[in-house]
Amino acid sequence: MNPDATHSAVLIALDWGTSSLRAYRMGPDGRVLDTRHLPWGIMRLPAPSTDGPMPASAAVGFELAFEQACGDWLRAQPGLPVIACGMVGSAQGWAQAPYLDVPADPRGIGAQLAKVDTHRGAMLHIIPGLLQRQGLANVMRGEETQVVGLIDSEAGAGGTVDDDLLVGLPGTHCKWVRVRGGRIVEFDTFMTGEVYAALRGHTILGRTMKDPAAPDDAAFQRGLEVAGSALGQGGVLSTIFSTRALGLTGQLSAQAQPDYLSGLLIGHEAAALRALLDARGMPSRIVLCGDEDLCRRYASALPHFGLAAPTLAGLAAERGLWRLAVSAGLIRQP
Amino acid sequence: MNPDATHSAVLIALDWGTSSLRAYRMGPDGRVLDTRHLPWGIMRLPAPSTDGPMPASAAVGFELAFEQACGDWLRAQPGLPVIACGMVGSAQGWAQAPYLDVPADPRGIGAQLAKVDTHRGAMLHIIPGLLQRQGLANVMRGEETQVVGLIDSEAGAGGTVDDDLLVGLPGTHCKWVRVRGGRIVEFDTFMTGEVYAALRGHTILGRTMKDPAAPDDAAFQRGLEVAGSALGQGGVLSTIFSTRALGLTGQLSAQAQPDYLSGLLIGHEAAALRALLDARGMPSRIVLCGDEDLCRRYASALPHFGLAAPTLAGLAAERGLWRLAVSAGLIRQP
Repeated sequence: MNPDATHSAVLIALDWGTSSLRAYRMGPDGRVLDTRHLPWGIMRLPAPSTDGPMPASAAVGFELAFEQACGDWLRAQPGLPVIACGMVGSAQGWAQAPYLDVPADPRGIGAQLAKVDTHRGAMLHIIPGLLQRQGLANVMRGEETQVVGLIDSEAGAGGTVDDDLLVGLPGTHCKWVRVRGGRIVEFDTFMTGEVYAALRGHTILGRTMKDPAAPDDAAFQRGLEVAGSALGQGGVLSTIFSTRALGLTGQLSAQAQPDYLSGLLIGHEAAALRALLDARGMPSRIVLCGDEDLCRRYASALPHFGLAAPTLAGLAAERGLWRLAVSAGLIRQP
Repeated sequence: MNPDATHSAVLIALDWGTSSLRAYRMGPDGRVLDTRHLPWGIMRLPAPSTDGPMPASAAVGFELAFEQACGDWLRAQPGLPVIACGMVGSAQGWAQAPYLDVPADPRGIGAQLAKVDTHRGAMLHIIPGLLQRQGLANVMRGEETQVVGLIDSEAGAGGTVDDDLLVGLPGTHCKWVRVRGGRIVEFDTFMTGEVYAALRGHTILGRTMKDPAAPDDAAFQRGLEVAGSALGQGGVLSTIFSTRALGLTGQLSAQAQPDYLSGLLIGHEAAALRALLDARGMPSRIVLCGDEDLCRRYASALPHFGLAAPTLAGLAAERGLWRLAVSAGLIRQP
């Protein structure tokens, strides 16, 4: 039986980041009918064949990836609206979507989509990023959609959204997003994930490391404890060298070093977050949203630094894409 | 006129690190008669030719580099003593020299040289590294020789050494070494230089940067100020992202971003150093020793964080090598 006949879609939604592209074919009420995960992040788009039907322009890689992600869905249902979030809207993306200032709410974000006419005739709507001018400048692109999805889930589950929520989005760059009354009011960015990868791959710390057979929770906890104790007073630029020094002196095995370093970095992040929240006021609740293993690490770190144990939410991008498509009037809910 | 005839050498000294090898031919009283700078750091040794006279062993790269550094000097004066400091004595080096525990003094260090019989018959003496067991484990290898050289210079200049000195050695890894009564009593390591290179070369921060025509002091100062202000409260994992965010929002040019990032990192290091010294007690004086541009950056950073303006010393490795060769009894001073 053809699923297109039984479940007619009303939206195609793309979560299009730096390193991958997720495509969702969505039915009424935002139910996901079909999902695709492609490796075509904006920094590694497919290369055109020299005799293909595509135009030879800077956009050709985007067109090819778009075709693979949802070309057949659009052929089956021409005219389906298409919405996207993430780095596809950055200066290095397909078309630049503006940054909106915080505070921002789902309605305001949905009202400012950028538009791209694709080669195959469909119109792609790109969700804007968010910009924080207050304090040190900060930007996000893609995470705003996850937070919108999370706000929507919370509202759907309990009927009301906590008045003062801190949403943590661990990843390459961990964003901590403050939500008050359903609006994104401020946020911080920690480059913890990308710094970890750079230290491991491109400094002397990686030289003595070996991959553990399984995550080494004890080594991770040891890293947290160093970051949170008087030993961590020299800060992250100093404590990370102990990964090597403890290894050289036989106090930390090669297999324990990766998770020890992870504990140090996430520990220093949690300590800094605690200091920021002490200055700004504690939220009523903390929610983590993202990769399961990473969320587990952060959930174990926060209480170590006197922060509330967080609740865990699944990935929320598809719900945010749906919610913003509705806000933007791309689909009419029954 | 042959310089060998007029200036008979009494020591060959090698400063042999990860990325380069400096060789000194030294006359009586430690005068440098000749210097060579070769690219043969222990991580990039010369490759043997397949039909050469060298033995096919793991040591062959070291033998070849050694021959290029001082083979002719040893032919001209067979039996000259040879001393070396640095990573050549590490687990990845030619032969492992032990780590000595701090506190350590020049006499103690000079008494514990490791020995390598070289293929050409000369004996190479390698200076041990230092190990700190107290607190978080820490090690150094090569910097101890610079500090010994500096202690010797200070004693030579004023007749006495300050009772409580802090020696900063900026570089790939910046060491801060506490010297009391002419002994190395404790030290800290900040991976600032290597972290800077990894962030610039292997994270998204490098993507928006361009090399400035000349060091951008204003951008560096701006980085220092952020690290030292309430804006820096999120710590280095957070503030570094402002390099990108300020760039994306037109507030920091591509050419200003490298020095801004340098200011952030050195600023966070100086802030942490200040915290450590507040806990341990201030030294009577701070001396910086190393690359001129880096020392200038640190000298400008320290007072920004309430630390004393440092005095600057030149590179001191050759003086330390000389001093330790004397301590070890490798040469007899007249």
